[in-house]
Amino acid sequence: MRKCSLKMLPKAHTFLTKRSSIGYQVNCIKAYSTNPEPKEPIVRTKTIPGPKSIELKNQLSAVQSTGTVQFFADYDNSRGNYISDVDGNVLLDVYTQISSVPLGYNHPRLLNIFKDENNLKTLVNRPALGVFPGKEWPEKLHSILMNIAPKGLNKITTMMCGSCSNENAFKSIFIWYQNKLRGNTKFTTDEMNSCMINMPPGAPKLSILSFKGAFHGRTLGALSTTHSKYIHKIDVPSFDWPIASFPQYKYPLEDNVAENKKEDEKCLSEVQDLIAQYKKKDIPVAGVIVEPIQSEGGDNEASPEFFRALQKICKKNGAALLIDEVQTGGGSTGKFWCHEHFNLESSPDVVTFSKKLQLGGYFHNDDFIPNEPYRIFNTWMGDPGKIIMLEEILKVIKDESLMNNVKTAGDVLKSGLLGLEKEFPNLLNSTRGRGTFLAVNCSNTKVRDNVVTTLRQNGIQTGGCGDIAIRFRPALVFKEYHANIVLDRFRKVLKSM
Amino acid sequence: MRKCSLKMLPKAHTFLTKRSSIGYQVNCIKAYSTNPEPKEPIVRTKTIPGPKSIELKNQLSAVQSTGTVQFFADYDNSRGNYISDVDGNVLLDVYTQISSVPLGYNHPRLLNIFKDENNLKTLVNRPALGVFPGKEWPEKLHSILMNIAPKGLNKITTMMCGSCSNENAFKSIFIWYQNKLRGNTKFTTDEMNSCMINMPPGAPKLSILSFKGAFHGRTLGALSTTHSKYIHKIDVPSFDWPIASFPQYKYPLEDNVAENKKEDEKCLSEVQDLIAQYKKKDIPVAGVIVEPIQSEGGDNEASPEFFRALQKICKKNGAALLIDEVQTGGGSTGKFWCHEHFNLESSPDVVTFSKKLQLGGYFHNDDFIPNEPYRIFNTWMGDPGKIIMLEEILKVIKDESLMNNVKTAGDVLKSGLLGLEKEFPNLLNSTRGRGTFLAVNCSNTKVRDNVVTTLRQNGIQTGGCGDIAIRFRPALVFKEYHANIVLDRFRKVLKSM
Repeated sequence: MRKCSLKMLPKAHTFLTKRSSIGYQVNCIKAYSTNPEPKEPIVRTKTIPGPKSIELKNQLSAVQSTGTVQFFADYDNSRGNYISDVDGNVLLDVYTQISSVPLGYNHPRLLNIFKDENNLKTLVNRPALGVFPGKEWPEKLHSILMNIAPKGLNKITTMMCGSCSNENAFKSIFIWYQNKLRGNTKFTTDEMNSCMINMPPGAPKLSILSFKGAFHGRTLGALSTTHSKYIHKIDVPSFDWPIASFPQYKYPLEDNVAENKKEDEKCLSEVQDLIAQYKKKDIPVAGVIVEPIQSEGGDNEASPEFFRALQKICKKNGAALLIDEVQTGGGSTGKFWCHEHFNLESSPDVVTFSKKLQLGGYFHNDDFIPNEPYRIFNTWMGDPGKIIMLEEILKVIKDESLMNNVKTAGDVLKSGLLGLEKEFPNLLNSTRGRGTFLAVNCSNTKVRDNVVTTLRQNGIQTGGCGDIAIRFRPALVFKEYHANIVLDRFRKVLKSM
Repeated sequence: MRKCSLKMLPKAHTFLTKRSSIGYQVNCIKAYSTNPEPKEPIVRTKTIPGPKSIELKNQLSAVQSTGTVQFFADYDNSRGNYISDVDGNVLLDVYTQISSVPLGYNHPRLLNIFKDENNLKTLVNRPALGVFPGKEWPEKLHSILMNIAPKGLNKITTMMCGSCSNENAFKSIFIWYQNKLRGNTKFTTDEMNSCMINMPPGAPKLSILSFKGAFHGRTLGALSTTHSKYIHKIDVPSFDWPIASFPQYKYPLEDNVAENKKEDEKCLSEVQDLIAQYKKKDIPVAGVIVEPIQSEGGDNEASPEFFRALQKICKKNGAALLIDEVQTGGGSTGKFWCHEHFNLESSPDVVTFSKKLQLGGYFHNDDFIPNEPYRIFNTWMGDPGKIIMLEEILKVIKDESLMNNVKTAGDVLKSGLLGLEKEFPNLLNSTRGRGTFLAVNCSNTKVRDNVVTTLRQNGIQTGGCGDIAIRFRPALVFKEYHANIVLDRFRKVLKSM
């Protein structure tokens, strides 16, 4: 066991530095749990990445591509909303590992769950869940995942990441679609034989309609529905599937109602046209995939009316509606699922998730369970070690009233951003979002990139998205006073530009 | 913390049943570590699944498809090579969660690693490895993964499962292929724009050649190279990619040399023909994917000569050779990577892995690293929590000389199967495989299914593959005496038929 670093611990705990087997370890955890976040970010190096990060980057370059690495983190010393790097910088993290950290770093209750012997055994005995699930699995699915199921969806398929959740959701949709066509008849010999050589009718020409600017993952099926940046797609073969425009709104919304409504109508009519066009082309649309807020593509929102109308078009055309909540799910929009904001007439057909929920998967209804076994299947089918973490995360969300927290902190951050937008109209515009899931546009890409870099140099880790947006993705434990720190530093950065 | 079940512990340990905070837990682990496997399988219910498994299956059916579930395991009470179920049955497991368990159940050294505070923090602070890796990451990749890298491959890309490893390896191959064509020129505007709408030239028509009977995963790209059973593929759209025949040998190999050689030649010439055909069709073959032993498809082997000739064809045609070691990798064939048995002229271009290695990924050389960032990327890019387990697994393999173990136990099992084949020529034939990675054919599917079920009812958990094969996939801790138990029970089952 390496030493528990005590750099940031209150003095009273320093007697614990001496290793004394298990007793040490337990006390060390206590020390961490009482150790607060720093009061504000600490920036120690002239540039981030600092010299130690650069040294590690060189080491890593020997075995893999490192063009995307921003800095090397010191996770042992990260706390709550603050991420520490190897050069001693401590940043207020409002990007949180591309929006995948629900409770910040080293939450004491998460550190404690694997002190439980049974949880530990779940970690080291990873089952093939589809074949030999553990005795706790049905209860865990009921009490944990079904407890957060979107209204109207009573079935769950677990996976491991966002891409494979979307890929398998597509398969469920294709199977459902063909099943409707086939009725109660059996597979034909022709279908069984042709699918083995990748040919119709067994491997039918079907499509999933997606939107420009969408991001649904990077495996070959998911990538065929991803259209946020060319660098994600270039040189990779793709399915010929239809792609509709996604609304591009003018802000503030309240001053552009008529124009934005027209934008909705234009996009919706494109969806209907493409469905007709691909039917003619003999690649019928079996499903439509959409993010409640296009994240990677630039935090593009669409109105509740847009989503309600989209659902109607899907129903009319016999296509399933798949809402991809991989980034939006888990509470940061102020509701556990972002699509709850839309008041849809009925539940979506399929809802995918991952990131903050630790494991991947999708909720759906009975129609999307294939009649035959082994159609939606893989070796692991998820990871029970991750669901243990999700269980504790959901308890903490409840115990610490984090959904309320998201609303209050989000209000402060959003109104602050609107204020900055008014103060710096040449630099910022189009503040938008729900809860703490917020974004603002910069005047151009150069300004945006400069703001993100300079914010980090001022102790605030944000992320870019689309061409000109900055996205805010704090953890659920992000509070009003954190929002005020972000806003103060942001103002300082904008003033300096 | 739930109680540590002491059903199977030696009497001396029963004073530990009383919970007494952390001390209890530590002693409980000790008890587990000294608690041996049972001497032989214990079957308590007339049929498996027993009544408790059936009850749990009913519970699980409320929220998901359960057609593939064999029984519910009690992992807390499973030990080494023995898996316990909820009805008190204890089976000698030679299937090991579809070949994904390297050290058996509850290995004491795996149970101990998360007693280390730093490892625990790695678990709860899961980074976006491509952007904010932890300070230990470069060292971990060097000392753990590069330490087992196939000869000649000096780069590693980490992923999470077998399917996404293959999908991303395909992408690396497509990028490499287009890069060769493009030379040092930049992307054209036409390429950048067309890829965004899934069209050539940006999303080019390229293919991966695969083999009949292959299994490479179930996401849409991987599924286009999978051809083991129609039920995996039916109703799912597919890429039009070429599929060659894989050798179907006659056994014993030594009596069928000339015929099997002809089979190799037939398949290899088909590969060459398909490459030419798909070039003409304007869907050139960028890479060839192949399993060293086709597992799901029926444990179909091909000779070292076949693989060496296949590599030559790839080189001649400018296609990359991807060896999928998801099931074969990790030691059970008697070498850490099965393709080491082939004495290839040079290293394969890409080698994918997952299962026993806990995390997924692929080894490759410099040519398969894209020049631009964000081309091979996703949120998590693997899971440092799994690499901690892999580290300890590799140490145990060394400390316990498990590679030798595989050879001695494999020899016993294989010669025993050959003996049974002679004793029951109407039921069994074609014993094959390397190390403990073994299979035998039954006279037909009905017999095979019956044997697998009856073996389980006699305390031996095996798995079927292909139409008529039984596969043996014991953990690396499977020893000679386990092999003898398998053989004794197998003989008993065959005699009863």
